[in-house]
Amino acid sequence: MKRSFIREILEHTTNETISFAGGLPDEKLFPNIQLEQSAKRVLLNANSLQYTTSTGLNELKDKIAQFYCDDGFPTEASNILITSGSQQALDIISRYNNGKCITIESPSYLGAMNVFELNNMKQDAVLLTENGIDINKFEDSFSRSKFSYLIPDFQNPTGYTYSIEKRDSIAKIVGFHDGILIEDSPYGELYFEQKFKSISSLIPNNSFSLGSFSKTLAPSLRIGWIRADEKLLEPLIAYKEAMDLHTNGLSQYILNDYFEDKKQYNIHLKLLRKIYAKKMQIFKSYLDEILPEFNYIKPKGGMFIYGSFPNINSSELVQKCLENNVIFVPGIEFYTEQNNKIENEIRFNFTHCSAKDIYKGLTLISRIIKEM
Amino acid sequence: MKRSFIREILEHTTNETISFAGGLPDEKLFPNIQLEQSAKRVLLNANSLQYTTSTGLNELKDKIAQFYCDDGFPTEASNILITSGSQQALDIISRYNNGKCITIESPSYLGAMNVFELNNMKQDAVLLTENGIDINKFEDSFSRSKFSYLIPDFQNPTGYTYSIEKRDSIAKIVGFHDGILIEDSPYGELYFEQKFKSISSLIPNNSFSLGSFSKTLAPSLRIGWIRADEKLLEPLIAYKEAMDLHTNGLSQYILNDYFEDKKQYNIHLKLLRKIYAKKMQIFKSYLDEILPEFNYIKPKGGMFIYGSFPNINSSELVQKCLENNVIFVPGIEFYTEQNNKIENEIRFNFTHCSAKDIYKGLTLISRIIKEM
Repeated sequence: MKRSFIREILEHTTNETISFAGGLPDEKLFPNIQLEQSAKRVLLNANSLQYTTSTGLNELKDKIAQFYCDDGFPTEASNILITSGSQQALDIISRYNNGKCITIESPSYLGAMNVFELNNMKQDAVLLTENGIDINKFEDSFSRSKFSYLIPDFQNPTGYTYSIEKRDSIAKIVGFHDGILIEDSPYGELYFEQKFKSISSLIPNNSFSLGSFSKTLAPSLRIGWIRADEKLLEPLIAYKEAMDLHTNGLSQYILNDYFEDKKQYNIHLKLLRKIYAKKMQIFKSYLDEILPEFNYIKPKGGMFIYGSFPNINSSELVQKCLENNVIFVPGIEFYTEQNNKIENEIRFNFTHCSAKDIYKGLTLISRIIKEM
Repeated sequence: MKRSFIREILEHTTNETISFAGGLPDEKLFPNIQLEQSAKRVLLNANSLQYTTSTGLNELKDKIAQFYCDDGFPTEASNILITSGSQQALDIISRYNNGKCITIESPSYLGAMNVFELNNMKQDAVLLTENGIDINKFEDSFSRSKFSYLIPDFQNPTGYTYSIEKRDSIAKIVGFHDGILIEDSPYGELYFEQKFKSISSLIPNNSFSLGSFSKTLAPSLRIGWIRADEKLLEPLIAYKEAMDLHTNGLSQYILNDYFEDKKQYNIHLKLLRKIYAKKMQIFKSYLDEILPEFNYIKPKGGMFIYGSFPNINSSELVQKCLENNVIFVPGIEFYTEQNNKIENEIRFNFTHCSAKDIYKGLTLISRIIKEM
């Protein structure tokens, strides 16, 4: 099995590297003071250090269920399985469905594609457009696979967002064929203007809704979850406990304490949305100024700007960039072998770098392109 | 796939239940004050909340490597892969070796047997005796499987410990057949009198040495590791990152800070050894007094007393005990189907309960037996 381009490149970067590669939040926005206060409170009780149950801390499951209820999607703690990041959620679900065929977006999230490969799944990649997956091609594929993985909100890598109409169509198709949708939404809360309705809420018995606090609070806590009907969730528990017994307890206790103050998380999310929207605008202005030939669609949220150069091989470009301490991810990494002819696409992360580094990094890339 | 008896029963216990079931440390011994101080220090730096590298935090890998060096087993950070508990370490290794045959002890650790099953491994269970696995039977099995999983120190479930001679013999056999040994030692530091030499140190190129801070520091942190030759470790990294990207960063930073004060951990381990040795003695005296017909071998460390009643079906007994708020694990849970005729064995954990609860629990069991 091949390692992840992004994870591997992460190990070759230094403090000098300007990285537009990973989906990294801005460290300056981490609520470390508040989480330290929570850590202090929960560590007064030694129970926060003991083994806990396989499906996760009940109080935290209650709170995650409440987030769904607040969005009008009735959910109880028994619908939640807490996982070691939503990466593990993907692994658990696809491990249980080993060898099946799965309909995915083209391009799609690299970590998901790696997990599907690890679990011997045949990936059928369907064209993703600006307002969502191509519906006719999706139905054609899904009628055979009856299993799909989609990222409708500010997709990784493209930043594209599904229209309301496409969400309704997907729900109808999944329901009609009585199949299963894995709806991954790590960026759902990072909208710039409006929050979108989840597809899962339209098909609660035919969906796994995946969530994570990695993009909204802190990746190092590795807390994600699966929301599903109890019947769908139940067989996954034996897998979860064979894989790592249970998710990190201390992080669960800390988050549970952090969410006790409901306002705190909302204020934090508002701040994230505001600053990331601003960073996206900064990235966009510099792009338009420094690399005007880069063709992209402005995202409505999330962490990425995705696009293409007219005549540049982005894999060759990134190698030269790496030598000059600036990196991004070539689009080809996000395609299956089925669609591996894309050579000129690029994913830029706009949340991690400072405005100064964005300017510096894009200027470097522009200079490298001119020398190519 | 079947759920773990222990994990499932954990969900059915209440605060009233006296549990001799799980391998739970005594919460009163958790260094929560010191870990809180470490948490406070590391959370001053927001980087402790960011994504980290797939193989684990370099500083922590250095410190784990140093623990091996201190035991005379030359090890570098590049020999360490940090995992989400040693349960995940087992999953990564067996996932990479999917479908192979593996020689295990009979009885063995339930969580390992579940992971081997999940990874389609054929388990060949070889009789474990008081001073280690039956060497002739081991060699016979290993010459075919060339792959083995052993717990030489204060084994789970039996509490048995391998003699020096058996350790040497195992190393010779593994080396001769150029096979692989997975040596799991979560209890190695919890010795009452002497620390035993690891088998892995005799065959560094043919072994995975598994460790964990779950039994010595705090299970909820879910920090374990694999120590192996770089060539053996390298292909596992892609699996690790597909499974959960990386192990919980905050816990790694906290432990790394905790170990900065070398004395602190040593003092803690000395305290654990002293108190667990005392608890074992208390459990033993009460057992001998209240259930004199229970036949067992006194452990030299670890967390378990294992033995049998002359004529009692321990699976029936545990059901009746559960109704009366006292539990343990019937021995049959630790056997493969190949050896599933053991009906009268029991594993008792002696580290978790107070002396008062040990007395109360064993008295309850004695009364229930008389009523059977």
